[in-house]
Amino acid sequence: MTGDSDTGRLPQFQVYRAVAAALDEDLGQAGDITTLATIDENATATADIVARQAGCIAGIQFAEASFKTFHHGAHFEEKIGDGGMAKAGETIARIQGNARALLTGERVALNYLCHLSGIATLTRRYMDEIAGTGARVCCTRKTTPHLRAFEKYAVRMGGGANHRFTLSDAILIKDNHIAAAGGIGKAIAGARAYAGHMVKIEVEVDSLDQLEQALKHKVDAVLLDNMDVKSLAQAVKTAKGRAVLEASGGVTLETVRAIADAGVDLISIGALTHSAPALDLGLDWS
Amino acid sequence: MTGDSDTGRLPQFQVYRAVAAALDEDLGQAGDITTLATIDENATATADIVARQAGCIAGIQFAEASFKTFHHGAHFEEKIGDGGMAKAGETIARIQGNARALLTGERVALNYLCHLSGIATLTRRYMDEIAGTGARVCCTRKTTPHLRAFEKYAVRMGGGANHRFTLSDAILIKDNHIAAAGGIGKAIAGARAYAGHMVKIEVEVDSLDQLEQALKHKVDAVLLDNMDVKSLAQAVKTAKGRAVLEASGGVTLETVRAIADAGVDLISIGALTHSAPALDLGLDWS
Amino acid sequence: MTGDSDTGRLPQFQVYRAVAAALDEDLGQAGDITTLATIDENATATADIVARQAGCIAGIQFAEASFKTFHHGAHFEEKIGDGGMAKAGETIARIQGNARALLTGERVALNYLCHLSGIATLTRRYMDEIAGTGARVCCTRKTTPHLRAFEKYAVRMGGGANHRFTLSDAILIKDNHIAAAGGIGKAIAGARAYAGHMVKIEVEVDSLDQLEQALKHKVDAVLLDNMDVKSLAQAVKTAKGRAVLEASGGVTLETVRAIADAGVDLISIGALTHSAPALDLGLDWS
Amino acid sequence: MTGDSDTGRLPQFQVYRAVAAALDEDLGQAGDITTLATIDENATATADIVARQAGCIAGIQFAEASFKTFHHGAHFEEKIGDGGMAKAGETIARIQGNARALLTGERVALNYLCHLSGIATLTRRYMDEIAGTGARVCCTRKTTPHLRAFEKYAVRMGGGANHRFTLSDAILIKDNHIAAAGGIGKAIAGARAYAGHMVKIEVEVDSLDQLEQALKHKVDAVLLDNMDVKSLAQAVKTAKGRAVLEASGGVTLETVRAIADAGVDLISIGALTHSAPALDLGLDWS
Amino acid sequence: MTGDSDTGRLPQFQVYRAVAAALDEDLGQAGDITTLATIDENATATADIVARQAGCIAGIQFAEASFKTFHHGAHFEEKIGDGGMAKAGETIARIQGNARALLTGERVALNYLCHLSGIATLTRRYMDEIAGTGARVCCTRKTTPHLRAFEKYAVRMGGGANHRFTLSDAILIKDNHIAAAGGIGKAIAGARAYAGHMVKIEVEVDSLDQLEQALKHKVDAVLLDNMDVKSLAQAVKTAKGRAVLEASGGVTLETVRAIADAGVDLISIGALTHSAPALDLGLDWS
Amino acid sequence: MTGDSDTGRLPQFQVYRAVAAALDEDLGQAGDITTLATIDENATATADIVARQAGCIAGIQFAEASFKTFHHGAHFEEKIGDGGMAKAGETIARIQGNARALLTGERVALNYLCHLSGIATLTRRYMDEIAGTGARVCCTRKTTPHLRAFEKYAVRMGGGANHRFTLSDAILIKDNHIAAAGGIGKAIAGARAYAGHMVKIEVEVDSLDQLEQALKHKVDAVLLDNMDVKSLAQAVKTAKGRAVLEASGGVTLETVRAIADAGVDLISIGALTHSAPALDLGLDWS
Repeated sequence: MTGDSDTGRLPQFQVYRAVAAALDEDLGQAGDITTLATIDENATATADIVARQAGCIAGIQFAEASFKTFHHGAHFEEKIGDGGMAKAGETIARIQGNARALLTGERVALNYLCHLSGIATLTRRYMDEIAGTGARVCCTRKTTPHLRAFEKYAVRMGGGANHRFTLSDAILIKDNHIAAAGGIGKAIAGARAYAGHMVKIEVEVDSLDQLEQALKHKVDAVLLDNMDVKSLAQAVKTAKGRAVLEASGGVTLETVRAIADAGVDLISIGALTHSAPALDLGLDWS
Repeated sequence: MTGDSDTGRLPQFQVYRAVAAALDEDLGQAGDITTLATIDENATATADIVARQAGCIAGIQFAEASFKTFHHGAHFEEKIGDGGMAKAGETIARIQGNARALLTGERVALNYLCHLSGIATLTRRYMDEIAGTGARVCCTRKTTPHLRAFEKYAVRMGGGANHRFTLSDAILIKDNHIAAAGGIGKAIAGARAYAGHMVKIEVEVDSLDQLEQALKHKVDAVLLDNMDVKSLAQAVKTAKGRAVLEASGGVTLETVRAIADAGVDLISIGALTHSAPALDLGLDWS
Repeated sequence: MTGDSDTGRLPQFQVYRAVAAALDEDLGQAGDITTLATIDENATATADIVARQAGCIAGIQFAEASFKTFHHGAHFEEKIGDGGMAKAGETIARIQGNARALLTGERVALNYLCHLSGIATLTRRYMDEIAGTGARVCCTRKTTPHLRAFEKYAVRMGGGANHRFTLSDAILIKDNHIAAAGGIGKAIAGARAYAGHMVKIEVEVDSLDQLEQALKHKVDAVLLDNMDVKSLAQAVKTAKGRAVLEASGGVTLETVRAIADAGVDLISIGALTHSAPALDLGLDWS
Repeated sequence: MTGDSDTGRLPQFQVYRAVAAALDEDLGQAGDITTLATIDENATATADIVARQAGCIAGIQFAEASFKTFHHGAHFEEKIGDGGMAKAGETIARIQGNARALLTGERVALNYLCHLSGIATLTRRYMDEIAGTGARVCCTRKTTPHLRAFEKYAVRMGGGANHRFTLSDAILIKDNHIAAAGGIGKAIAGARAYAGHMVKIEVEVDSLDQLEQALKHKVDAVLLDNMDVKSLAQAVKTAKGRAVLEASGGVTLETVRAIADAGVDLISIGALTHSAPALDLGLDWS
Repeated sequence: MTGDSDTGRLPQFQVYRAVAAALDEDLGQAGDITTLATIDENATATADIVARQAGCIAGIQFAEASFKTFHHGAHFEEKIGDGGMAKAGETIARIQGNARALLTGERVALNYLCHLSGIATLTRRYMDEIAGTGARVCCTRKTTPHLRAFEKYAVRMGGGANHRFTLSDAILIKDNHIAAAGGIGKAIAGARAYAGHMVKIEVEVDSLDQLEQALKHKVDAVLLDNMDVKSLAQAVKTAKGRAVLEASGGVTLETVRAIADAGVDLISIGALTHSAPALDLGLDWS
Repeated sequence: MTGDSDTGRLPQFQVYRAVAAALDEDLGQAGDITTLATIDENATATADIVARQAGCIAGIQFAEASFKTFHHGAHFEEKIGDGGMAKAGETIARIQGNARALLTGERVALNYLCHLSGIATLTRRYMDEIAGTGARVCCTRKTTPHLRAFEKYAVRMGGGANHRFTLSDAILIKDNHIAAAGGIGKAIAGARAYAGHMVKIEVEVDSLDQLEQALKHKVDAVLLDNMDVKSLAQAVKTAKGRAVLEASGGVTLETVRAIADAGVDLISIGALTHSAPALDLGLDWS
């Protein structure tokens, strides 16, 4: 029931629709001509999705959908669910069914699964670095176009938190908004008048002085942009819990622990979604 | 007119359609409420897309489309075109127009541009490593779902070559196909009988012995899978130009030069598209 | 810059796309055969969109888009913008252009405009009833399928507030959630653990006792379901500003004032979007 | 086999597709976070769709599809079919299945069902008013964009008749067409020359004189626009069955009986689709 | 204003949308690689669409859209409009613009134009055969999937009439319907009770006896299926103008005149849309 | 496993999606009103798809999908599979299920099946003409918009070969490309530099002199445009197997044998897809 143990799967109809579009992209108009030319249409096979490196899994529904779109009756046995950790060499899922279906669905299955597991794995590495602190890493809107909902799901599977999904979800006042509105106070007042009662307001600040102003106007969260660890710690003292504090800017696996130790609540990292390398997974035939 | 200097832009109607879908994803149903709350609807602004790190640019059309979708009459001046190299701090494009349009379109503009430029930049780095050899790096079908055509375009902008776009484009016979068909010879014969005359045939081999068989059956290309450099050099000697030779498997920036020096024609690298970190670009307001 | 004077228009590309779909629905495959049979293809005309009854306007962009989709160069002069009040008989917009375009685009133009203006007008009537109180009326997710973003926009144009746009926007814990979670406290704890830091939490209660529990767990808002005015007033006293208070359930134009006077912040009314009669507007030819 | 007992259901593939789009709209990118946070993923439940007020049901397929899209194996028992009358308090359908599916699908299920049942109910009320006359009420093209086919289906379920679905279906010559064509006769002649042999022709008239002209040119139907009851009766006498007579303009539940008694065949009422309040239905958990 | 001189163009937004889908289908993911490799991106050219054989033109909007989708500012001069006759060798349109745009858009432009002109031309040939009779040829629902509206438009351009566009447009009672309903009379009664007042009713008969029954029940039209010319003439006598008479079944250019001379109103020919050979048109560069 | 016996079916999800779009087009908004009015909703029926003329079948999946979209549990028994030959009067498939489903799905089922079987049949006729030669007929990009993949599949079912599916698949250098590039040699060099290693290059020539140049530059294939049989034979001698030779231009059933006897490998015929008459198939009820 908590974010850490969330096993809430993605809506199946959305997964199958996305997979159909990805299969169109991969099939072209003539289909999988190699497989059509070399594999008997009635042949069956068994194959395992295997981790070539250790990592956190996300997106297993896409793999199942990729194969089952070609062979509805295929048997797909999930061995490590989304959010679970796979060791190198471990089997994540076993699929039994029509051999053509397995070969033709393989690439789309793995493209989703490796991409999303890569994000989950990087998120998990960051979370491991800050284990025991009260902080949590958090993604941004710096996602791959057309994949945001799925990438943010992968962040959750890795134990991370989600920031805004869309520009509609919450107010996030940045420097340009502040400048245009004529100051932090005016920007916040405008936001509060505009936003509905179910919308939170966060302000991006780059100095402790700006932080004080933001707190004075009772925002829900403050994004501390590119501050050094010492300033972050000072910000935590200043805020005294009056707002969620989120550190941002150039965070790496090397620097994240110190930032977390400074006492902030969240550490947002665009790289979780825009630069996570794919997790190396493969399909091994029995 | 050659691949290296290709300035062929992507079809605009496809770029605008992709951008519209990405904007839907980013806007949500209420729109950019922060900007609506704080920026006057008639305000205008000027902003520069600036490289925060050096890299090869790809996807500038997406940035232009993101802004112009909100403000058709905005002025977009491209300073570094796709395929060009930006130094850290250099301006890539300048946009002048409605301030809300600039703020609301920013994230989608950068999400495309940073993602595609990341791919172009990694490709360029590999190409630089093998400069002076006859080899070229080449992408795979390990792309991000829904973005293949654009990612492969980015590889071209980085100077790399494209392998198959879809399963329809060409025959690529892998181990499972060979096993099912009853040997390399039978698989190739089946492929040749099936494929049209405009379809090339490549076979994946993992030994020199298999290479000989493939060459005997006159394939267009051979994918040398996970061979060490010595074997690759031997393969080049064996082939004597009878087929395009493509090395594949675990290639890194550290190992790519030696592979190229072994004399292969192509080095295919899934990481170009599945693991390239985003290029760090930002939007600076004047 | 505030909700009351918001002139933020809907994104044009979304309006034109919606209008194209509505025109497909209205045209059928043979097109406007009556107009094709009786109106010269080069004839031009001028027509006014006129209010047959007084009301608050919303959706003028849809009208413009309906006509301009058929005649890009038509001249559309908006006389009363979205959020403005039209008197009976008053002209809202004047359109000059190809006569066929005016006749063929008329129905879709008016269907959107009358529907959205009907919502804005009903919202405005409720807001007028509670003028001078601190309360605001608010819509729900009881919207017409496929039109939610536009209908909620119309509520804003009428001066009302928006509640959640989607199930993703915010937590709203209802009786079934409470029962399943094992009590208000557990439900709120689960929600807080699950939800991101930019997500607000509201709890629906039907007694002052439940209100106390909800407040104890520091929720952002409480929905007071089907309480009488006396209980509402008591709830306001109890809450002492610790949460936004939203009254809900069977609110009518006759009862809304008393509810507002009880001191709640918001009064949510499903009928704003699911039962507002269309505003009677027509197209008069000069 | 007649309109009154028509049980022809809507094509399922169109219902499921519409529901999927409505669910996308309602879910947002994070899904039903309240339910995900508070309801066990394996919990099951039983719930009844119950009428909170009496009315005529339409759209039960949408409710079934909304739940089954999330839980394919859910059991949906329809107790009152489309076109049937529900008393206040009566159960319309019972659904048993995954508890999350029931909670997450509820709003879309009810949004369709309440909207369409509202239209059926209003239609039925009008039909009851004119029971025993030979007249029938009839809808117009004043429908909610994107919902026309479903709304017109709801009118049929309420016992009403459908007018044109699209501009392609039939010729309806209005005042502007007549003016442009140079008179009723010329407009009808043009229409007859243009229209196919399976296309009926109706003319809108506002005087008995115009009626005579229309009848002289042998149209299939005449729309008597905004005529008083006395004129309508006179029109019936004049027409002597030579054309279907349709009364139109400002019809209300108070005036409809007298209009029907005047002897017209049809009474078209835009409000059936543009202003019917939603029928109040709810989901009660066992 | 009549069918013969109808110059009503297709809605541009529908033409451009269809063309975009066709271009996606033709471009593939890499685009027009031949043109990209050999033609300078700034080269301009002039080309003529020329008739290689005589025929009736339909679909010129698609050609314009195909080129302008790639080069918005291209100049397209229409020399023979839809419905006009081109002689062999005659120029139909001239296009000036970017050379790549001309080469890449050519195939889609011609695929639409040759297909639709083929239909218009075959229709015109049939109409020429029956010139001077009162009959007109008419298309059926035997159209190419996804192209019905455009193909029926082409029939109109060739001077033919359109039968039903969809199953919704009109009632057409065939043998299976009659058998299931228990006879012609019952089928017609059921249809009349079901259909709206703007819906015409046609019955398919294969004997004069059935014709009598159909006429007795006052249908709008009768489809005389596979009757010989003598029977058709007898049917005309029998009907005495009480219903539109439509002959159908195996009509050819050789037999159509005799059928028309028998006095029927319409002659429906599936081959107009399902078997018309493409008109041979080409693009000649200046 | 070879092209001649290919039984590789089309991906089902693509077939059902295409059928759904075609059904939308055929149903209109009111559905099959004739069937709804005359056929009991619970009636069942059995019907056979029967060949009214002999031919080669292609597209049987579309027929199955058309019926099953309305009645998922219908029984569809395929008696002659795609690529098989039907004699006049022979049954191709038998369908048992809901009578309304059979009547309403009939037209779309037959429209696909007759169109694709028409293409397969014409292809088969050409292949029969050249039986015993080493040549094969081949389709072009002159296909019906939106149906290319299916039409090319039908060509394969008729025993023909497929040329390019899209402009991305292969290089085909034509006269305008040669002229713009400054000669055959330069055009080929540009193409080779641009194209990936899996892309074949073909050049269109209209003289033996051009053929020599093309061969000198080692292209994969040469399209011999509009050459007489004598020149074709000379071309075969000249080429000596150095490139695939494809004859093109005005090929008919009368001329194709002589062309094949000249020794070319392929004979491309646009008419296979743009002018094949539909195969006459019908649905007979038991």
